[in-house]
Amino acid sequence: MKTREIAEFIGAELAGDSDTEINAVAAYERASAGDIAFLEKTNVETETGASAVIVLADFSGQLRCPILKVRSPKLAFAQIASILHPRKQRNPEIHESAVIAASANLGENVFIGAFTTVGENSEVGDGCQLRAGSKVGDGVTLGKNCVLHPNVFVEDGCIIGDDVVLHSGVVIGADGFGYVRDDKGSYHKFPQIGTVVIEGNVEIGANTCVDRGALGETRIGEGTKIDNLVQIAHNVQIGKRVVIAAQTGISGSTVIEDDCVIGGQVGMGDHARVQSGAVIGSQAGVLPGKIVRPGVWWGTPVQPLDDYKRQNAHVKGLAKTKDELKDLKRKIADLEDETNRNRNTR
Amino acid sequence: MKTREIAEFIGAELAGDSDTEINAVAAYERASAGDIAFLEKTNVETETGASAVIVLADFSGQLRCPILKVRSPKLAFAQIASILHPRKQRNPEIHESAVIAASANLGENVFIGAFTTVGENSEVGDGCQLRAGSKVGDGVTLGKNCVLHPNVFVEDGCIIGDDVVLHSGVVIGADGFGYVRDDKGSYHKFPQIGTVVIEGNVEIGANTCVDRGALGETRIGEGTKIDNLVQIAHNVQIGKRVVIAAQTGISGSTVIEDDCVIGGQVGMGDHARVQSGAVIGSQAGVLPGKIVRPGVWWGTPVQPLDDYKRQNAHVKGLAKTKDELKDLKRKIADLEDETNRNRNTR
Amino acid sequence: MKTREIAEFIGAELAGDSDTEINAVAAYERASAGDIAFLEKTNVETETGASAVIVLADFSGQLRCPILKVRSPKLAFAQIASILHPRKQRNPEIHESAVIAASANLGENVFIGAFTTVGENSEVGDGCQLRAGSKVGDGVTLGKNCVLHPNVFVEDGCIIGDDVVLHSGVVIGADGFGYVRDDKGSYHKFPQIGTVVIEGNVEIGANTCVDRGALGETRIGEGTKIDNLVQIAHNVQIGKRVVIAAQTGISGSTVIEDDCVIGGQVGMGDHARVQSGAVIGSQAGVLPGKIVRPGVWWGTPVQPLDDYKRQNAHVKGLAKTKDELKDLKRKIADLEDETNRNRNTR
Repeated sequence: MKTREIAEFIGAELAGDSDTEINAVAAYERASAGDIAFLEKTNVETETGASAVIVLADFSGQLRCPILKVRSPKLAFAQIASILHPRKQRNPEIHESAVIAASANLGENVFIGAFTTVGENSEVGDGCQLRAGSKVGDGVTLGKNCVLHPNVFVEDGCIIGDDVVLHSGVVIGADGFGYVRDDKGSYHKFPQIGTVVIEGNVEIGANTCVDRGALGETRIGEGTKIDNLVQIAHNVQIGKRVVIAAQTGISGSTVIEDDCVIGGQVGMGDHARVQSGAVIGSQAGVLPGKIVRPGVWWGTPVQPLDDYKRQNAHVKGLAKTKDELKDLKRKIADLEDETNRNRNTR
Repeated sequence: MKTREIAEFIGAELAGDSDTEINAVAAYERASAGDIAFLEKTNVETETGASAVIVLADFSGQLRCPILKVRSPKLAFAQIASILHPRKQRNPEIHESAVIAASANLGENVFIGAFTTVGENSEVGDGCQLRAGSKVGDGVTLGKNCVLHPNVFVEDGCIIGDDVVLHSGVVIGADGFGYVRDDKGSYHKFPQIGTVVIEGNVEIGANTCVDRGALGETRIGEGTKIDNLVQIAHNVQIGKRVVIAAQTGISGSTVIEDDCVIGGQVGMGDHARVQSGAVIGSQAGVLPGKIVRPGVWWGTPVQPLDDYKRQNAHVKGLAKTKDELKDLKRKIADLEDETNRNRNTR
Repeated sequence: MKTREIAEFIGAELAGDSDTEINAVAAYERASAGDIAFLEKTNVETETGASAVIVLADFSGQLRCPILKVRSPKLAFAQIASILHPRKQRNPEIHESAVIAASANLGENVFIGAFTTVGENSEVGDGCQLRAGSKVGDGVTLGKNCVLHPNVFVEDGCIIGDDVVLHSGVVIGADGFGYVRDDKGSYHKFPQIGTVVIEGNVEIGANTCVDRGALGETRIGEGTKIDNLVQIAHNVQIGKRVVIAAQTGISGSTVIEDDCVIGGQVGMGDHARVQSGAVIGSQAGVLPGKIVRPGVWWGTPVQPLDDYKRQNAHVKGLAKTKDELKDLKRKIADLEDETNRNRNTR
C-alpha cells in the first residue's frame, strides 16, 4: 500500500511523499523500512526507522519520513493494521478426520480442521474456521465468520453470533455451579438446563469459561471483549461493548450493562448490577446484590475511586494519627496535673 | 409426569388437580404451560404461567394452578428436575478414532467419543462417558458412570471414584509446583510422583486443575463440588461435601475438612487447615499454616466476619476520627492558653 | 542404586551400610524398605521405614538405616529423585493419526502422539514429546527434549527453547488483549502480530496462558517456573529463574527481572517493573507503572512487608484508638468544665 492509499483509507492529511510503499505496521521504536508506525505525542523525542508515521492532527515535530495526521493515531494504526495484517485466512477445507453429524449444516467456505467435531443439528455459518481439536456439541448455532481456535468447546444448544472469536481452550456452555443441600448435608444439582447466547463481534480469551444458564440464558452482548481465564457464571447478562480483563470472575445472575470496563482479577458476587459506563479497577470486589453506579470504582468492597484514595491515605496516615493521639494524651495529663495543683492551692 | 406422581416423588402435599401433565421445569417468572416452577415465599406477588408450583409448607398465597407443599421447594425442584431433565445419555459406543491401549479395561455400556485416548492398564468403569477429545493416561482408574467432558485430561495413575463429573478442560494429576534452589540460583524439580484420588460423586468445573501429590496423594472427598478455574495444588486434602467457588486457589498440603464452603477467588497458603463447617467469603486470603476454625470468615488475612465488619466500619470512620482529633487538639490548645493566662495572672 | 552410588552422586558423607539397595524416593513419614527419604532437622523425632535417609551435615540423631550427610538434603533428594524416577520416556513414534505438514521438520527420537498437529515450516527438536491432542501451529520452533502435555496449543510463529515443559491445556501465543475505541464506542482490535519466546528449561503449569506480543515479543527467561492458571499478557518480559505461583496475572509490557519470586493470585498492572530479587506475596496488587525494588512486598497496593505489617497492626488497633479518643474527649470536657467553673468563681 502506498502512503497515499493509506491516507485515504484512514482519512489522514498526508505530508511528504505519497508514493512510499508500506507493507507492515511496527512499533515506533523498532520500525524499519517499509513499516508504518504511530505516535501519540505532539512532538518527537527519538527518530524512527519507519517509512511513514501516523501522528496527531496538531503534531508539530519534524520527521524524515512522510507523516499522516489524524485525530486518533492509535485507532488509525489499528485500522490500517487490519488491512496490512489481515486475520489468517485458511482455505476452505473439511479435514478428513473431522467428525460431523449427518444432520449438521455447514455453510460456504468453512474451514473444519483436524480432530474437530460438530454435533447433531448444529449450524456452522459461512466462512467459519474451526481449528484443530475444537468441538461443537449438538444443536449449536455458529454465525458467519466465527473463529474457534484449537481445543475450544461449545456445548449443546449454545448460540453464537457472527464474527465471534473464541480463543484456544475456551469453554462455552458448561454447567453452571448450582446445588441445593438436603437435611443430611448432601448437595443435589440444581438444574443447569439453560443456554448461552453470544452476540456478534465478541472476542473471548484463552481458557475463559462461560457457563450456561441454570434455567434461562447467559448472554454476552455485541462487541464485548473478554480476556483470558475469565469466569462468567450462569445467567450472567453482559451488555454491549463491555471490556473485561483477565482472571475476573462474575457470579450468577449478575448484570453488567453496556459500555462498562472491568479490570483484571475483579470478583463480583451474584445478583449485582454494574450500571452502564461504570469502570471497575483491578482486584476490586463487588458484593452480592450491589448496584455499581456509573463512575470509577476501586477496592474491596468497591467504593468510588476518590473515596478509596482518601481512605487509603487515612490508613497510611494511621501511624501519624497514633502519634498525635499520644501527644494529646500527654498534654491532657499535664493540664490535669496543673488543674489539680491549682485546686489544691486554692 | 402428572402432578400426582410428582407430589409422591418429592413427598409433597398436593392442592389442586392431580392429573396435570408436567414435562419440564422452569423459572417461576418465565414458566409456561407444561412447566413446574418453585417459589420460596409464603405469598405471591406475581402470577406464573406454570402448570404447577412447588411451594413452602406454610404457603398462604393463591395460585391458579396446582401447588405442591414441601419443606424445601428448591430442593424438591432440583429433585424433580433430575427426573424431567436427566443427564444426557449417550448410546454405548467406542468411536473408531479412539486410541485405546490393548491392556486397558473398558466396562459395560461405555461411551468413548472421537479423538479420545485411554492408556495402558487403565480401567474405565461401567457407564462412563468419555466425550470427544478427553484423554486418560496410563494406570488410571475411573469408577462407574463418570463423565469426562470434551478435552479433559486425567494423568497417569490417578484414581477417580463413581459418578464423578469432570467438565471440559479439567486437568487432573499434572505435576505439582515444587522446586529446590541450588547455590547458583537454579531450580531443580522436587519429585512430583504422587497421585490424585477423587472420591465418588464429585463434580469439577471447567478448566480447573488438580495437581498430583509430590510424594503422597492429593485427595478430594466424596460429594465435594468444585467450580471453574480452581487451582488445587499438590497434596491438598479436601474433605467430603465441600463447596469451592470459581477461581479459588489452594496451596500445597492444605487441608479443608468436611462440609466447608469456600467462596470464589479465595487464596490459601500452604499447610493451612480449614476446620469442618467453616465458611470463607470470596477473595479472602488464608495465610500459610493458618488454622481456620468453624464460623464465617472474611478478608485478607481472614478474620471472623464480625471482626471484619467492625474493622471495616472503623476504617470507613477514619475521616471522622481525624476530624475529632483535630477538634480535640483545638480544645486542648484553648485550655493550655487559658491555663497559661491563669498562671501568669496568678 | 546402592547407598554408596547415591552418596557419590549427591556428594554425601555416608554413614552405615554402603550396599543397601534403593529404588525409590519417599516422604520420611511414609517411606518403607527400598526407599530413600530426607530430613531437614538436626535430630530425629519419629523413626522412618526408609532404607536410607539424606540428612543435614550437622545431623546428630540416631537412625537404624544408613544416613547420607549433605548441606541441602532437600536438594540432594530432588537430585536423586530425578535419577530414580526419571521423566517418563515415550518410545519414538509418530502416531498414524498425527497431522504433520509436509514442510514441518521433525528431529530424531521424537514422540508425536495421537490427534496432534504440527503446522507448516515448524521445527520439532530432537527428543521432543508431543502428547495426545497437543497442537503446534505454523512456523513454530520447538527446541530439544520439550514435552507438550495433552491438549497444549502453541500458536504460529512462537519460539520455544530446549527442555521446556508445557503442562496440559497451556496456550502459548494467543492474541493479546488490546483494542482501540472509536467515537461511537466500538472496539477495534489493536494488532496482535508479535510472538512469544520461551527460553530453555522453562516449565509452565496447566491451563496457563502466555499471549503473543502485540508488535514485539513476549519473553520468558531461562529456567523460569510458572504454575497453573497464570496469565501472562502481551509483551511481558520475564527474566531468568523467576518463580510465579498459581493464578497470578501480569498485564501488558510489565517486566519481571531475574530471580524474582511471585506468589499466587498476584495482580500486576501494565508497564510495571519488578526488579531483580524482589519477592511479592500472594494476592498482592502492583499498580500500573510501579517499580518494585528488591525486598519483600505485600498487599494491595504493594508495600514493603514491614510497612504492611505495621499498617495492618494499626488497622487492627483502631478499636482501641477510638476508645482512647473517647476517653480523651471526656477528660477534655472535664477540664473545660473545671476551667469554666474557675473562670466564673474568679
